[in-house]
Amino acid sequence: MDRDDIRLSFDAVRRLAEQPLLKCGVSREHAEAMAEVVALAEADEARSHGLYRIEGCVQAVRSGKVDPQARPEVVSTAGAVVRIDARGGFALHPLRLGRPLLADKAREFGIAALALNNCYHFSALWADIEIMAERGLVALSCTIGAHNVALAGGSAPAFGTNPFAFAFPRGEGRKPFVFDLSSSVVAKGEIELRRRSGESIPAGWAVDRQGAPTTKPEDALAGAIMPFGGHKGAALGLMVELLAGPLIGDLKSAEALAIDTHDGGPLRGGYLMLAINPGHLGGNDSGLEEADAWLTSLARQHKPARLPGTRRHAARVRSMADGILVSRCLYNRLLELC
Amino acid sequence: MDRDDIRLSFDAVRRLAEQPLLKCGVSREHAEAMAEVVALAEADEARSHGLYRIEGCVQAVRSGKVDPQARPEVVSTAGAVVRIDARGGFALHPLRLGRPLLADKAREFGIAALALNNCYHFSALWADIEIMAERGLVALSCTIGAHNVALAGGSAPAFGTNPFAFAFPRGEGRKPFVFDLSSSVVAKGEIELRRRSGESIPAGWAVDRQGAPTTKPEDALAGAIMPFGGHKGAALGLMVELLAGPLIGDLKSAEALAIDTHDGGPLRGGYLMLAINPGHLGGNDSGLEEADAWLTSLARQHKPARLPGTRRHAARVRSMADGILVSRCLYNRLLELC
Repeated sequence: MDRDDIRLSFDAVRRLAEQPLLKCGVSREHAEAMAEVVALAEADEARSHGLYRIEGCVQAVRSGKVDPQARPEVVSTAGAVVRIDARGGFALHPLRLGRPLLADKAREFGIAALALNNCYHFSALWADIEIMAERGLVALSCTIGAHNVALAGGSAPAFGTNPFAFAFPRGEGRKPFVFDLSSSVVAKGEIELRRRSGESIPAGWAVDRQGAPTTKPEDALAGAIMPFGGHKGAALGLMVELLAGPLIGDLKSAEALAIDTHDGGPLRGGYLMLAINPGHLGGNDSGLEEADAWLTSLARQHKPARLPGTRRHAARVRSMADGILVSRCLYNRLLELC
Repeated sequence: MDRDDIRLSFDAVRRLAEQPLLKCGVSREHAEAMAEVVALAEADEARSHGLYRIEGCVQAVRSGKVDPQARPEVVSTAGAVVRIDARGGFALHPLRLGRPLLADKAREFGIAALALNNCYHFSALWADIEIMAERGLVALSCTIGAHNVALAGGSAPAFGTNPFAFAFPRGEGRKPFVFDLSSSVVAKGEIELRRRSGESIPAGWAVDRQGAPTTKPEDALAGAIMPFGGHKGAALGLMVELLAGPLIGDLKSAEALAIDTHDGGPLRGGYLMLAINPGHLGGNDSGLEEADAWLTSLARQHKPARLPGTRRHAARVRSMADGILVSRCLYNRLLELC
């Protein structure tokens, strides 16, 4: 614990996230949904998607980019698909509305999809789908990220950081198997941190504006980040761009960038979530039990390697028991916004 | 062209693949479906999934592992899910049966799933789903691969090579956007080739039986291959193992290995395919046109980087015009099997 950190309860963190949003005109439904996810990220020590994001959201309202009172509209529930128009508002409130509809569809048909359009998503995808797996459903989700990832062997941004997430239910008392990964080899924030501290970046992370490999953070930030895992990560990044963009009639990452107001807030775009009901697929309860036992044995037998989500879930247990550490500087900044 | 290569038409390659299968007792339906996909792999110069695989399939019949006459059974068509039991036969014939059922479900409900159980899949996944995208559907598929991939930071096999594939329709006259990737950083065959030629393998590909990083092919083959892209590739490999295994009530990679007869043929396991109808998701025709234009511009603007599938599709055009080159040695071997 840093001398400058303060320790807050989950509810206190939630209120700390919610107040600046309400203050700048965000409706109660939006602010509640957003504060819940931000507090969860803080509890999981996933700080890059925590309280630090609130200021960007406030700026995005102040710049006029995001409609803070947007009332999401369910556009269609034909077949096994739910389509929701966020109408230029933040994504988390419409996702809260859409998830039960999606879950009902998945339970009825075995598999279902939720397409959310015209939204601003600023948070971690794992938080959106972990809750589906806690209700016994398998879930996948993806959205368009910042337009700064090159193709393998490429020299300029071709697609977005395009996160993709997956959640699978575990047994009673265990958190779901959940991961959330971006298509880039490293988060842009990591490069920004090196720039600030004057460090160089490892070879293979990025190219400069001319497309040449670089280890200089400032050149990387003006150029493009490489996809993770070479052409495989690039393929997945392109997949997400197609699924959360044209497939659902929404923006591609370059288009989202072109209309952005650069206020530090999230980019406009689409979001796709799929849900699968194990009962329809043949695995049933015994398949879920088997998966659970397998994941437990993997975690035990392959140390020090970890399963995705392990560190986050351990942090959450600590946070709920002992409180959440928040830097004094961030705390004060959020109070100033109120 | 090697002096020892012979040039065959697509139909001749198909017959060359089919004859040994029929000869060893594979039913006409199975042999036809398998020969079609093998010939397509040869046309695409994806040789590792081409004619070379036929001998393993013949051995898998001779060893008694695969039922060459298995009649797949449609177990359930409830909701948006089709479940087929392959009853211990090869996978491609039941996939041929299941695809139209899956496509009908996707057109009715917007999204649908096909779970195939108790099958032996030996071929490239792209061939299974490219045909779905040619009919205007988005498709994903995955199956369990050989149990030899470690977790990132791990030291022993934890899951299979678990291929995952995605296909998205393109405009008239263009082949779909398709990729097919395994969870390992490199195919086991690449390591085997280095062993035969006495070369070492790059650092980062594999660990030995004790879990130590190795550059010796023989130690790597006794140990484990690393996932592509570190923990991200491992997460995707685990996802596939859950989706094509426990979710559909089928084997995990370690179980498939444990019951295998090591005849050189494919492993037993499950297979999951998802299909999405763009018309239901909001993208409609304009979304597909936009995706097509975007992919065309990416391919043009980001040379020498290539989009997935580009090399295969170019090879197919050449092969259909000029014929397919088959090594004399492989040709003779297949004739011997007849």
